[in-house]
Amino acid sequence: MSAELRFATIGTSAICERFIDAVERTDGVQYVASYSRSLAKAHEFADKHHARLAFDNLDTLAGSSAVDAVYIASPNALHAPQAKKMLSAGKHVLVEKSFASNTAEAASVFACADENGAVAMEAMRNLYDPGFEETEHVMAQLGTVHAANLRFSKITSRMARLRAGNRINVFDPRLSEGALMDIGVYAVEPAVALFGVPERIAAAGVMGNVPEEPADSPYRLVDLSGEILLEYSEMVASIGYGKTYDSLIPCEIAGDLGTLSIRSIANFSGLGLSMHEDKGMIYDTGKGSETNLHVDTPHNDMVCELACFLKATGGDKEARSRIARFRQVTLDSLAVMDEARSQLNVGFPSDMATQFK
Amino acid sequence: MSAELRFATIGTSAICERFIDAVERTDGVQYVASYSRSLAKAHEFADKHHARLAFDNLDTLAGSSAVDAVYIASPNALHAPQAKKMLSAGKHVLVEKSFASNTAEAASVFACADENGAVAMEAMRNLYDPGFEETEHVMAQLGTVHAANLRFSKITSRMARLRAGNRINVFDPRLSEGALMDIGVYAVEPAVALFGVPERIAAAGVMGNVPEEPADSPYRLVDLSGEILLEYSEMVASIGYGKTYDSLIPCEIAGDLGTLSIRSIANFSGLGLSMHEDKGMIYDTGKGSETNLHVDTPHNDMVCELACFLKATGGDKEARSRIARFRQVTLDSLAVMDEARSQLNVGFPSDMATQFK
Repeated sequence: MSAELRFATIGTSAICERFIDAVERTDGVQYVASYSRSLAKAHEFADKHHARLAFDNLDTLAGSSAVDAVYIASPNALHAPQAKKMLSAGKHVLVEKSFASNTAEAASVFACADENGAVAMEAMRNLYDPGFEETEHVMAQLGTVHAANLRFSKITSRMARLRAGNRINVFDPRLSEGALMDIGVYAVEPAVALFGVPERIAAAGVMGNVPEEPADSPYRLVDLSGEILLEYSEMVASIGYGKTYDSLIPCEIAGDLGTLSIRSIANFSGLGLSMHEDKGMIYDTGKGSETNLHVDTPHNDMVCELACFLKATGGDKEARSRIARFRQVTLDSLAVMDEARSQLNVGFPSDMATQFK
Repeated sequence: MSAELRFATIGTSAICERFIDAVERTDGVQYVASYSRSLAKAHEFADKHHARLAFDNLDTLAGSSAVDAVYIASPNALHAPQAKKMLSAGKHVLVEKSFASNTAEAASVFACADENGAVAMEAMRNLYDPGFEETEHVMAQLGTVHAANLRFSKITSRMARLRAGNRINVFDPRLSEGALMDIGVYAVEPAVALFGVPERIAAAGVMGNVPEEPADSPYRLVDLSGEILLEYSEMVASIGYGKTYDSLIPCEIAGDLGTLSIRSIANFSGLGLSMHEDKGMIYDTGKGSETNLHVDTPHNDMVCELACFLKATGGDKEARSRIARFRQVTLDSLAVMDEARSQLNVGFPSDMATQFK
């Protein structure tokens, strides 16, 4: 391995470009190779981002001695097989969320990483944001937490294209996609990280038709937005997500001593703490006494997860223990999403594959 | 009947005093009588609020020719029997929320009102606030509504008393009380009024022990806070309520064209409209382009429901049609709450009584 961790990318979307921007802002890491199913597209993407290599064959990429790690930002259904191919060749993998189609698939990726002495980490960027740590720290002041309301909903122009009859990757259950896997995960994973495995789950969703999918296909419906309740003995967490509307209200974690508001769960920014003041029976709540908590979140906050990945691949103990913790969060969150999908009747082809493994 | 509608009150709590304040601010209505189980307390309350009469016997109150209407603010379990007693004597009743213990009980009260040619109305004040009408009006601009997040949670000093082992009316299932019936109703009723009867309901709650209640009692647990999902074909409404924490974030109703925020569902105040602007893939949502909608909500907004009640008892057609609409909302909302309570295992003695009627 060279002094710098040499990264390849799988995928050529906006999130991939954002990752490369994070690489450019980070010492000790270098962007060297692009993969696309189309070699022309791979070359074009590599040239644009000053990478030396371009691949259209995953086996060749896996066998290349010029690559140490791979950032995987393909459709969700491809994450696990691609990650395992790279891990088996001894490469580290940083895998965009959602890490895999389901819990069983994710477990098989982590097992493969362990067998090959390589690092597999989910690029769940908000868990690595400084605001997440600050939230954990501040929660101690809230008393017994009784409620969390975590939501991330952003309407996408892809909605109109879907309604017009276009088949879109992000709304295709055959690719293990849908609103929950694409955007809901931003709220589910912090909930599981902060509050643990829920005792009971209830999900409700707004569904859309998948264009060109036969009427008797198990993949003819996709979730466009939804709500999940995570029930614990002392609290209920309410998760809201959607690609059909913009949610503009802050998130909130509330205990019997105080309430923490979080402007955006996507990067844990805009934290505000309001301690409870007993004003008797009032009918209108305000935020008069909210204290803003200062957190320095980088504009491109993918540098945070990248920094941890880099340290972990370098053998840093603290980073390894952090990603070990978040590996469990990945697994437990996928279990929540498996159950939510089951309640919403959203099945993926990968569910069948892993079930019979 | 005199030129003025002469009101008696049942109850002597803060909400009762607020109602009397609303009476004093309203033309054509007069506060004349107080009822309490203790005659001394009834006299004291009557004197304080300049009422001429004081009762400690409900039959005597029902038989009094000096009283035209009764505002009932006793514990929920007493609402229906007291309302029916008054209606049967030809008096109109304005009944604090929750109107009755369950749907069947509420239906029996409305039937009794119809039989006696009297008005029975739930004092669900936020439905009568001008902000509710404005919300209905603005919803037309939101496009297809896909999500609503309505919440009302306020920690009460009674929580500490409950935890210390005191039996408290508002946390007593034997009185048809608990967080859902006391405070959740503020969010459930607008949801049902705005979006209709849900296709599916899922509830999760935080439960507390009822002091002095035997271990084998069906009334040993009370709901302290909770979340309810109302699922419709095109949307999910998420209802949050609690007496264990302060929720400080606004409510929200969101469609594919825009998002309406509501600072307080308790009186539908602080409305803000944000139309969707396509800014591509952004990770942080803001409220930069929110337009504040001006609504004049009276400081004591109970005058709004009182005005409608007064008109309805006077035979005004528009008011009668409005309370007929909200009568259905009361019934449909209680059906939602019956189902939520069933999922939370919160039963009331009245459930048994009405079941076998």
